Amino acid sequence: MAKQSKKAFIGIDLGGTNIQAGILGADGQLAVRGSLKTKADGGTDTVIARIRKLVERLILDGGLKPEAIGGLGIGAPGAIDPHTGMVLNAPNLRWTRFPLGKTLEKNVQMPVVVDNDVNAGAWGEYLAGAGRGFDNMLAVFVGTGIGGGLVLNGKLYYGHYHSAGEIGHTTLDANGVLGRRTLENLASRTNIANLLRQLIEANHPSVVSEMTGGDLSKIRSKVLAGAIRRKDPLTLRVVEDAAGYLGVAIANVVTLLSLPCVVVGGGVTEALGRSWVQQIRRTFEQHVFPAELSKCRVVASRLGDDAGIIGAALLAQAKLSE
Amino acid sequence: MAKQSKKAFIGIDLGGTNIQAGILGADGQLAVRGSLKTKADGGTDTVIARIRKLVERLILDGGLKPEAIGGLGIGAPGAIDPHTGMVLNAPNLRWTRFPLGKTLEKNVQMPVVVDNDVNAGAWGEYLAGAGRGFDNMLAVFVGTGIGGGLVLNGKLYYGHYHSAGEIGHTTLDANGVLGRRTLENLASRTNIANLLRQLIEANHPSVVSEMTGGDLSKIRSKVLAGAIRRKDPLTLRVVEDAAGYLGVAIANVVTLLSLPCVVVGGGVTEALGRSWVQQIRRTFEQHVFPAELSKCRVVASRLGDDAGIIGAALLAQAKLSE
Repeated sequence: MAKQSKKAFIGIDLGGTNIQAGILGADGQLAVRGSLKTKADGGTDTVIARIRKLVERLILDGGLKPEAIGGLGIGAPGAIDPHTGMVLNAPNLRWTRFPLGKTLEKNVQMPVVVDNDVNAGAWGEYLAGAGRGFDNMLAVFVGTGIGGGLVLNGKLYYGHYHSAGEIGHTTLDANGVLGRRTLENLASRTNIANLLRQLIEANHPSVVSEMTGGDLSKIRSKVLAGAIRRKDPLTLRVVEDAAGYLGVAIANVVTLLSLPCVVVGGGVTEALGRSWVQQIRRTFEQHVFPAELSKCRVVASRLGDDAGIIGAALLAQAKLSE
Repeated sequence: MAKQSKKAFIGIDLGGTNIQAGILGADGQLAVRGSLKTKADGGTDTVIARIRKLVERLILDGGLKPEAIGGLGIGAPGAIDPHTGMVLNAPNLRWTRFPLGKTLEKNVQMPVVVDNDVNAGAWGEYLAGAGRGFDNMLAVFVGTGIGGGLVLNGKLYYGHYHSAGEIGHTTLDANGVLGRRTLENLASRTNIANLLRQLIEANHPSVVSEMTGGDLSKIRSKVLAGAIRRKDPLTLRVVEDAAGYLGVAIANVVTLLSLPCVVVGGGVTEALGRSWVQQIRRTFEQHVFPAELSKCRVVASRLGDDAGIIGAALLAQAKLSE
């Protein structure tokens, strides 16, 4: 670990829809926080201008002098080269080979560190969240997709093509009736929602019909959470199945990497809460090898939505203080 | 990497049935080689005495002076603490918490480095075999069981409980009709042989009946290789299925860790050869993510049976030259 910095760092979580940002004070607390729509349709110039606008607003809101800020970290969705700050491919933003780090440095007049958004979230949970103190850990974020980040021996692990952590694309059901299925095909919000929709359309009763006003294309995490609060049997079954697949996939990673800690986050986890993580943990314990590894902590994210922002700021702090 | 040593190192591959050993010369070549039955039934004293006997014989055969030998590396089956040289649990030897490193040092009068046998094999393939030059790689050994070893960022990766690499215990078929099944349940020689036996007993024709003289408890790797040479349709099908599961499991690891190289070894691989590795590779390419990773080399072991010996000697060289 780099030595404690006396400066503040800006953290940005760049998504396809929203740019979320915050300033992490020298005390390790998120001092100010804000967001803007990404407007990715406008192209890279538009997005860069909006990031700059948001950064300027945060600095103003925080009452910080430029010299008090050590730099900016940004997590972007997709394939990133963390060494050059290049976004290799980001389908959500429709960017290919865009030099995000260099472009942003010119625009915000401070050093910039770029990483994958999921890696930033994993780093945040490792240094300031539920993974604190565990030098080997996996963070899994369950939302419209399923992403993962690995900290091994106290460092983010990137692998040869910088693509490490893709637990969502591991195969869990090599013999599926409908062909092989990956974790993402089985347990992402997209697939939970699709399965619920199909079951409801096949006349399985569910409060979700009423909750969505019959528009089953709108099954978001909040709807799932509401249906579970109302103990809707169909939703409970579909969500428990998804938790089971997550438990198996996490057990596979822990078995392979002998990990003492797994942090589960993302929109679905935030919405479904503790009981969902407990379901994941139950299946995990049945599958992990050797038995000793059932002691591995499988816990909910502590930073929630802020993991990406805090992690990006902490990545900048670590890399710029090296 | 440690600097090139001018000394020779002894490498030992300790198995439940045989002790295999060799001396790796200062030129990096295996100078002498030998083996003895383990006789694990005799307990730790017997096994230690036999290792000592074999080591003395090798030194004599090699015409080496004691001062020309830098130390001894030994790979043992089971859970090992590589830092203390303690065998935590080795079911094949019926050992629990046996201080192999310290005991052996007293008996052979030289420094001893202990590791898991699969890790030793992986390290051998990394430094002197098919994985040479790839600082991130997986080695998978398919025999009566399926073991794996990981080199990450140029070092053996152990994980929190020193158990990393257990690809054989990852689940591939979470929804199996007969319950969930791990890679080892699907593709080890034990399971290939069991499945063949069951199919033959259910009257599927196969040359294996004749080759084993009707004793279907004796389906070893050589029988499988012979049946494949004779293009036995049943054996071809069972073996191709196993290769498919290996391809999926390897794709999962490469997807998770973004690896550029996977080395496949072990008794089954030695017996079945290149076409078996090609079958594994085909399924691997269909499952790995992102597509860029289909460039990952999935290749047969180059050191074959010597991987464990050479790897153990190289581990001793690396650790004792630090």
